[in-house]
Amino acid sequence: MATLSDIGLSAAINILSAFAFLLAFAFLRLQPFNDRVYFPKWYLKGVRNSPTSSGTFVRKFVNLDFRSYLRFLEWMPAALKMPEPELIDHAGLDSAIYLRIYLIGLKIFVPITLVAFAVLVPVNWTNDFLDKSTAVHSDIDKLSISNIPKGSERFWTHIVMQYAFTFWTCYILLKEYEIVASMRLHFLASAKRRPDQFTVLVKNIPPDPDESVSELVEHFFLVNHRDHYLTHQVVYDANKLSKLVGKKKSMQNWLDYFQLKYERNPSKRPMCKNGFLGLCGNKVDAIEHYTDEINKLSKEEAEEREKIKNNHKSVIPAAFVSFRTRWGAAVCAQTQQTRNPTLWLTEWAAEPRDVYWNNLAIPFVSLTVRRLIVAVAFFFLTFFFMIPIAFVQSLANIEGIEKALPFLKPIIEAKLIKSFIQGFLPGIALKIFLILLPTILMMMSKFEGFLSISALERRAASKYYMFLLVNVFLGSIITGAAFEQLHTFIHQSANEIPKTIGVAIPMKATFFITFIMVDGWAGIAGEILRLKPLVMYHLKNFFLVKTEKDREEAMDPGSIGFDSAEPQIQLYFLLGLVYAVVTPFLLPFIIVFFGLAYVVFRHQIINVYNQEYESGAAFWPAVHGRIVVALIISQMLLLGLLSTKEAAQSTPFLIALPVMTYTFHRFCKNRYEPAFVKYPLQEAMMKDTLEHAREPNLDLKGYLLNAYIHPMFKDEDDDDLSAGDEREFDNVLVPTKRQSRRNTPAPSKFADSPPPSLPDASGEQLFE
Amino acid sequence: MATLSDIGLSAAINILSAFAFLLAFAFLRLQPFNDRVYFPKWYLKGVRNSPTSSGTFVRKFVNLDFRSYLRFLEWMPAALKMPEPELIDHAGLDSAIYLRIYLIGLKIFVPITLVAFAVLVPVNWTNDFLDKSTAVHSDIDKLSISNIPKGSERFWTHIVMQYAFTFWTCYILLKEYEIVASMRLHFLASAKRRPDQFTVLVKNIPPDPDESVSELVEHFFLVNHRDHYLTHQVVYDANKLSKLVGKKKSMQNWLDYFQLKYERNPSKRPMCKNGFLGLCGNKVDAIEHYTDEINKLSKEEAEEREKIKNNHKSVIPAAFVSFRTRWGAAVCAQTQQTRNPTLWLTEWAAEPRDVYWNNLAIPFVSLTVRRLIVAVAFFFLTFFFMIPIAFVQSLANIEGIEKALPFLKPIIEAKLIKSFIQGFLPGIALKIFLILLPTILMMMSKFEGFLSISALERRAASKYYMFLLVNVFLGSIITGAAFEQLHTFIHQSANEIPKTIGVAIPMKATFFITFIMVDGWAGIAGEILRLKPLVMYHLKNFFLVKTEKDREEAMDPGSIGFDSAEPQIQLYFLLGLVYAVVTPFLLPFIIVFFGLAYVVFRHQIINVYNQEYESGAAFWPAVHGRIVVALIISQMLLLGLLSTKEAAQSTPFLIALPVMTYTFHRFCKNRYEPAFVKYPLQEAMMKDTLEHAREPNLDLKGYLLNAYIHPMFKDEDDDDLSAGDEREFDNVLVPTKRQSRRNTPAPSKFADSPPPSLPDASGEQLFE
Repeated sequence: MATLSDIGLSAAINILSAFAFLLAFAFLRLQPFNDRVYFPKWYLKGVRNSPTSSGTFVRKFVNLDFRSYLRFLEWMPAALKMPEPELIDHAGLDSAIYLRIYLIGLKIFVPITLVAFAVLVPVNWTNDFLDKSTAVHSDIDKLSISNIPKGSERFWTHIVMQYAFTFWTCYILLKEYEIVASMRLHFLASAKRRPDQFTVLVKNIPPDPDESVSELVEHFFLVNHRDHYLTHQVVYDANKLSKLVGKKKSMQNWLDYFQLKYERNPSKRPMCKNGFLGLCGNKVDAIEHYTDEINKLSKEEAEEREKIKNNHKSVIPAAFVSFRTRWGAAVCAQTQQTRNPTLWLTEWAAEPRDVYWNNLAIPFVSLTVRRLIVAVAFFFLTFFFMIPIAFVQSLANIEGIEKALPFLKPIIEAKLIKSFIQGFLPGIALKIFLILLPTILMMMSKFEGFLSISALERRAASKYYMFLLVNVFLGSIITGAAFEQLHTFIHQSANEIPKTIGVAIPMKATFFITFIMVDGWAGIAGEILRLKPLVMYHLKNFFLVKTEKDREEAMDPGSIGFDSAEPQIQLYFLLGLVYAVVTPFLLPFIIVFFGLAYVVFRHQIINVYNQEYESGAAFWPAVHGRIVVALIISQMLLLGLLSTKEAAQSTPFLIALPVMTYTFHRFCKNRYEPAFVKYPLQEAMMKDTLEHAREPNLDLKGYLLNAYIHPMFKDEDDDDLSAGDEREFDNVLVPTKRQSRRNTPAPSKFADSPPPSLPDASGEQLFE
Repeated sequence: MATLSDIGLSAAINILSAFAFLLAFAFLRLQPFNDRVYFPKWYLKGVRNSPTSSGTFVRKFVNLDFRSYLRFLEWMPAALKMPEPELIDHAGLDSAIYLRIYLIGLKIFVPITLVAFAVLVPVNWTNDFLDKSTAVHSDIDKLSISNIPKGSERFWTHIVMQYAFTFWTCYILLKEYEIVASMRLHFLASAKRRPDQFTVLVKNIPPDPDESVSELVEHFFLVNHRDHYLTHQVVYDANKLSKLVGKKKSMQNWLDYFQLKYERNPSKRPMCKNGFLGLCGNKVDAIEHYTDEINKLSKEEAEEREKIKNNHKSVIPAAFVSFRTRWGAAVCAQTQQTRNPTLWLTEWAAEPRDVYWNNLAIPFVSLTVRRLIVAVAFFFLTFFFMIPIAFVQSLANIEGIEKALPFLKPIIEAKLIKSFIQGFLPGIALKIFLILLPTILMMMSKFEGFLSISALERRAASKYYMFLLVNVFLGSIITGAAFEQLHTFIHQSANEIPKTIGVAIPMKATFFITFIMVDGWAGIAGEILRLKPLVMYHLKNFFLVKTEKDREEAMDPGSIGFDSAEPQIQLYFLLGLVYAVVTPFLLPFIIVFFGLAYVVFRHQIINVYNQEYESGAAFWPAVHGRIVVALIISQMLLLGLLSTKEAAQSTPFLIALPVMTYTFHRFCKNRYEPAFVKYPLQEAMMKDTLEHAREPNLDLKGYLLNAYIHPMFKDEDDDDLSAGDEREFDNVLVPTKRQSRRNTPAPSKFADSPPPSLPDASGEQLFE
């Protein structure tokens, strides 16, 4: 058990390391040659010019103005300064609402902490149960519920506090749901004309022997939505084409690399091997080799394009159908079209850049089977992932390495290195797995057949949350691998499980405090440094960049990464709510986490991240739901804990809490969730009427004609698309100092190709 | 443990009693004076005339044609003769589909029984495990899984059989779901014009200071459904009026009774007491007293009618909105209207006679609270109902009766009577509770705020099923009260529960066989006798009936009573599926039940029941779901049973079954359930187009004007309604020998007032 001074030391170390990260960040961000790493969002918006184009040569790379170093935390107030409406306009509603998750953390936990320290800490402290008992204990335990003797009347305080905290949390959640729902509706209402407002995605179009998909769609909607149907776009199966384009791009990178190398050292023609991964095969002239390859691929690509366009088999049975009015689209999206509910399925089309094209062709029956497979796979992943990792660990020992790579033997045998490897190796398989985990979960979600990137991220997030809950939260409390926990749960009775966990809760407080400091504080401070993009950018800048356009492509602004970031925040909500009554001493650490993370992510969202899509905060019901789950878990665990404390006469009062909390959740779901799922007809009608009055002669058909074309075909029709692309830069709420975009066709990078963090179709490859 | 001969004896007794019931029925139904008890459906349809109007006096009451007694089972083939399309036309789709539940029972269990007897019985029989063991056992146990020694390889047979039975059941369920869904869609498609096809119920209309509800509705729909809105009807709060009308009717009955009494014995003016329930107060002339009362009530009623019509406060914030086309109504019912999902809620209007008027005004927030209260109340009802009953039982002993009613003492003290009362009294409280249970559950469902009688019955049915599952099925297996079971479940681990139950399953086979014979065979045979309506009809006929119209009102055709009948069938599905592998000997008894029940209910539906509403088989998803639940329970229990049989190597194969069954359920839910919830636009458009072509000059507005008027106001506008009422008698598929209706405004009895079996608003009274 750690004492207060241990915690103090750990806090000091972590505060120092967080401080060091912030200092490093403050230093690095001021260097002009890092400008594209720390302010990519502004480059993409076209507001910022390359800093290398002005000033003396040295000033281009290093900031010599020492005054600027003195105010090294000045980014913090700057990050907080931008008002929310401008933030929504600048980074989208998703990002602005995402920040509100941290704000909720503060809103919930600051008052709870004040009350807990004012009431619970004195109540706990003025006992001397632990002093009398023989068990080892720390100073923190004296502040926690452990210090209260069994059967004491003081437990009433904890029960009342749990009620108070529950009501406060529910109150904040309710308010916040209300605010977010109205922000979403306002956002949708004030949004400029967008193709997805008029468009519905139709899936599972039945095959017809006489008509093509396109004719079929036209006829069907002309009959059944007579007054509203406008036009439609069929979807081509361009997965093979995407692969070719990707391959060509990587070849182009290599070509650039060798050309740059040749330019810098013209005396020597660069050579490369033409075999697998450039590791084997004959040596050939690199530039010639890659030019050849690129030409070959270009030809193949053109052939594939022709083939897709002319072959009616490459049209998949799905289409984007556009309507004359938003009302017509809203009606079509919310209704069932035919007798057979597995045919002609309609749903709102996602934004064009949010569409996940690879999943559009999955038939209905296969969806059920896919969900089953993923559910089973996820179950095994969660509870049994330690088994293959333990197996890999048993292989990856020193002897194994020496056997496989005998030439490394002298190095490995050196004492210092040997002990390092022995200490490091067992952990590395686990570490690699944990780094890959969000990608694996994303693949699983893709395999399940979701149709938009935003839906995929939401699904992957809920899986990741389950994993964290079982393996981090429960795994730390009941020490032992997850499958051992599973065994325990199956073999324990329903009322024993909360007891087992509840009893262990107070003992793990110091562990979780350290966890919060390492994972939360230092982790968040590390996030702002952006070490990986920093290194990658400079590598690319050195080896590949020839033109300004290349440099722009070398920037990796990244995005929030809802699928892995949000579940981690939820872990802190869970810890905070569980320990609020049990060990209030943990709460200030949670508050510091939420405060720091809020500032850091606000800075990142303003200056760095470039969100790939705009879902209009569609993730909020999931966020809300998980906080409610955390609340119910905290109530169950307190119930379990108190039932071992012989406070039998008081515990029944706690049983009502989960029931009431669940009812609260049902109420919120009914009251607010429709705002995130459906599009009310009144709103649609209002916007239609307004638009009709303002622009009676609008050519809507022309506007929608190519909005939902597959990204692979978009380049060809780029000029048709100007209307659609302008959109993003039109809907300005607050005037900013934006200049016109210089040479940046930047959005095309993120809208026209699958985003780099989401490998195409790899989910299917893994499981099929 | 019962031996085979015990079972044989029990079977003989029950077959004899069932036979006696059938014989009594055959005799009674041929007597003309019972004609209205056993053939009320035909009277309501106007096909049958009163048999008392022809023939000699004796023949009017007693059937003297002895030949007809010889063919006393002739109703059976007659009941089976009517083809299904004519049955649908005659009794409605609900009744026809309800019969299919029994048919499914036969389709599932006949092949399972054949296979089980061919495979499992020899496998079980050829062991001699039980002979060697010291435990008592019966012959039936020799045929069951109990006869197989622990750890035997023969358990593989049972696992394979469980797989086979599961697949067969799922196959039948799938086929049946498909058939029922297409029958429903065909029924809806071929249905004649009905008001509910064009009408949507709008609830939670927000209050407006400037406009009345009616104006508000008109404006809202004129704006948001511009091209489709036709007309609307507001709903009046006529609950007080209904009470007055009910009171007046009961007074009228008493007046009739005394007038008849006076006519038969004109020498003596009948007298009655004017106090509480006619038990106290002054003696007054009965005819005068009741005439006065009726006049008073008529005046009050007229005043109340005026008040409702003129006071805008008696308009509740709900309305029935009708559209020009079915397409428009389908769109409005399936979409969200405004930002706030708790206002302007739209859903399909139920048939006018299916609407449950009392619940239309419940606000949204209150619904969540009501559901919570009912859920908690239902939980306590299910698990703790024995406690108050035990309390009542402890009061209702002989000494208590002697104290309360001392004049009964000499009778009670007689030995025979005393022992009878002592044996009988403890059970009577429980018996009364069980008889009242469906009514209590219906009250709970009403309190939850459902808006149509069909939805109320479905909800009450699912509650009743839960109750039967816990208290009859589990209660018989783990002997002991339900709250003791609850205690066991909470204190046992998740894998112990199926074991505890599974082990007890084979031992309870004989008990359940007896149960099936008593409750199933004899119960069904008793159903056909209609003892209660028979007695009630003759009482009313003697005391109240003056005119033909009175006699018609004295008929009580009843209805299927989905809320209590369907859960009881489900119990047999559960028993059959659980015992299919364990003790196949039980299966033939199940088959006899399903066969007998099918014939009996087919007869009743054709000749007796008058369904109060037509929901278009909306109950099927619930029926399907409960059979799947029974399937999963059977799999879990077999798993539990085998895990105690040391067949550890084979049990893991069973774990996959519940997962696959659940996936099957998800698939069916997605595939077929929308057919029961939504109305596809294609169908609506087709019917609209057809109708428009056939009747271009239809006055739809006039047709819909008074369709959804509150039943209390309907009498006044009766002539407007002829179009609506004719409907039922128009849609003839197969020409029958129907004559025109004589003096029968019969449908008005069942459509215009809340059905007698569903006491109005009593749910609210109970809980508020």
